[in-house]
Amino acid sequence: MTELFPSGVFCAALTPLQTDLMPDHASFVRHCRYLLEEGCDGIALLGTTGEANSFSGDERRGLLEAAVAGGIAPDKLLPGTGVAAFTETVALTKHALSLGVTTVVMLPPFYYKEVSDEGVFAAYSEIVQRIGDDRLRVVLYHIPRFSAVPITHSVIERLRDRFPRTIVGIKDSFGELAHMEAVVRRFPGFAVLAGADPLLLPLLKDGGAGCITATSNLVARDLAFVFRNYADPAKQAEVEAAQARIVATRNRVTRFAQIPSIKALLARQTGNEHWRHVRPPLLPLSEGEAAEL
Amino acid sequence: MTELFPSGVFCAALTPLQTDLMPDHASFVRHCRYLLEEGCDGIALLGTTGEANSFSGDERRGLLEAAVAGGIAPDKLLPGTGVAAFTETVALTKHALSLGVTTVVMLPPFYYKEVSDEGVFAAYSEIVQRIGDDRLRVVLYHIPRFSAVPITHSVIERLRDRFPRTIVGIKDSFGELAHMEAVVRRFPGFAVLAGADPLLLPLLKDGGAGCITATSNLVARDLAFVFRNYADPAKQAEVEAAQARIVATRNRVTRFAQIPSIKALLARQTGNEHWRHVRPPLLPLSEGEAAEL
Repeated sequence: MTELFPSGVFCAALTPLQTDLMPDHASFVRHCRYLLEEGCDGIALLGTTGEANSFSGDERRGLLEAAVAGGIAPDKLLPGTGVAAFTETVALTKHALSLGVTTVVMLPPFYYKEVSDEGVFAAYSEIVQRIGDDRLRVVLYHIPRFSAVPITHSVIERLRDRFPRTIVGIKDSFGELAHMEAVVRRFPGFAVLAGADPLLLPLLKDGGAGCITATSNLVARDLAFVFRNYADPAKQAEVEAAQARIVATRNRVTRFAQIPSIKALLARQTGNEHWRHVRPPLLPLSEGEAAEL
Repeated sequence: MTELFPSGVFCAALTPLQTDLMPDHASFVRHCRYLLEEGCDGIALLGTTGEANSFSGDERRGLLEAAVAGGIAPDKLLPGTGVAAFTETVALTKHALSLGVTTVVMLPPFYYKEVSDEGVFAAYSEIVQRIGDDRLRVVLYHIPRFSAVPITHSVIERLRDRFPRTIVGIKDSFGELAHMEAVVRRFPGFAVLAGADPLLLPLLKDGGAGCITATSNLVARDLAFVFRNYADPAKQAEVEAAQARIVATRNRVTRFAQIPSIKALLARQTGNEHWRHVRPPLLPLSEGEAAEL
C-alpha cells in the first residue's frame, strides 16, 4: 500500500486581526505553536477559514513569512495559494517554496463559473508547469460551496496522470462522506483529507488520509487522538468520547456563522480580543449571538 | 432631473494576450483608440469580459498604465478594481486615481457566498473610506452569475445614503430588463448601465444611463448610434436597423463561450492572432466551433 501524503490532522487556522483588520502576526504564531502542541500534524493556514481570499498577495506572503520567522517548521505549514489569477497562484506558490514550504492547498481559479473540466485542468497544469519545482506537492481544494468550481474525478485523473509526484491529495469540503469515499476508492495512493471535523473518523476507517478542518482550532487534541488511535481496539471508548466532543463543538460553531463563531470562542479561551475581528464581507457575531454561543 | 453619470456606451474591452498569455499592451491601446473612434464614450477595461480576475494586481496595474501612457484620456477609462480582498481593491483603486482615472466599476468581494447585505455594505463602506478620495466615482457591479454575490436594493440604498457623491451607478449584468428598470424607478439620479447589448435600447427608453457590454467590442458604432438617436423620431428606422445588427451579433457570440467567441471574431477582423488567446480556466474555441462561428 502506498503511504499517503499528506496524512494527519491539519488545522485550517484562523487569522487573528488587529483593530485595523491587518493580520496580527504575533498572535498567529502563538496559535500555530499551540496547535502543534495540541497534536496537529501541520497548519493549513490561509484557507477559507483563515479568510485568505480577503487578504492581498502581500498580506498572505507576510503571514507565511511571520510563521516561518516565528519558528514554525516549514514542513508543518500548508498554505493556501490558489487564487482567481493563475499568475498570482504561481507567485504565491513560488514564494512559499522560497521559504522551504513545499506542500500547498490549491483552489481552482474561482471567478468564472460553469467552466469545463478541460479549463480547470488547463489552469492547474499551467500553474504546475510555470512553477517548475520538483519539490512542490499540491493538495487540490474541492469546496464548491465557496469556489463554485468543483474538482471532478476527471480533473483529478488527468492531473494525477500528468503530474503524479506533484498532485498528491485533495481537501474535500463538499461535506459528504460518500463523496470522499468515492475518491479514495477510485484513486489509490491519493490523499483524501476531510474538510469537516466529524468526518475524520469515518473517513480514516475507509482509507482516508486525515483532515484539514476549522473546528480543529478548538478541538485539535481530540482530533489528533482520533487520528492516532482510531484503529486500536483497546481505545475505542476514548476515541468515541473524543469524537463526541468533536461533534458537539462542530454543532456549536455552525449554529451561527462558523468563522466568527470559532473566532469568538478562541477570543474567550485566550483572552485575546484580536480573535474576534473578521474582514468584510464576513461580520463578527452580534452581541446576542455571542451571548447565546 | 439629475444628470446621470456615467452615461453612454462603454465597451467592456477584451484583453489581447501574447502567446505566453501575458497582456499585449500595444494591441490593447490600439483597440481602445479604435473603440473611441467608433463612438464609445469610454472603455470599461478589466471587467469580466477583459478577464480581469485572471490577472494579478501587477498585471492589472500594468494594463491601465499602458492605456494612459498610450494616450487614452483617463476620463475615458473605467477600470474594474473590485477583487476578493478589500485591501487589494483599495490598492487597485488608489492606483487608478493616481493616474487620474476616477471612475471605477467595482465587484463586491466574491469569494464568500451567502453573505449578508450588511456584509456587502460593510465591504464597500470600508473600501470607500480607506480610499478617502473625493474624486472617486464608483459603479457597483451586479453580476451574480459570476460573483455569486448579488447587490440588492438594500445595499444600493445604504451605500447611496452613506456615500451619495461616490456611489453613482450600477452595471447590471443580471440579464433581465425588469431588474434594471426596478433600480431606475427606485433610485432617481442613479446611473443604471445595461450589461447586455440588446438591452441598451429598451433601458434608455425607461431612463437608464447606457451600457457596459461585451459585444460592443464588435458593434460599438451601432450601440453609439442607438445611444445618440434612440429618442429622435426621424431616426427610428436607422435605430431599429442598428439594434437588429446588435442583436444578431450578440446571438452569434453567445452560441459558444462568449469571451473566446468575441476574441475569435476580433482576431479575424484585425488579423492579430493575439486576440485568440484566453487565460485558463477559459479556453479558446475549438477549431470546429471557430469554423462554425
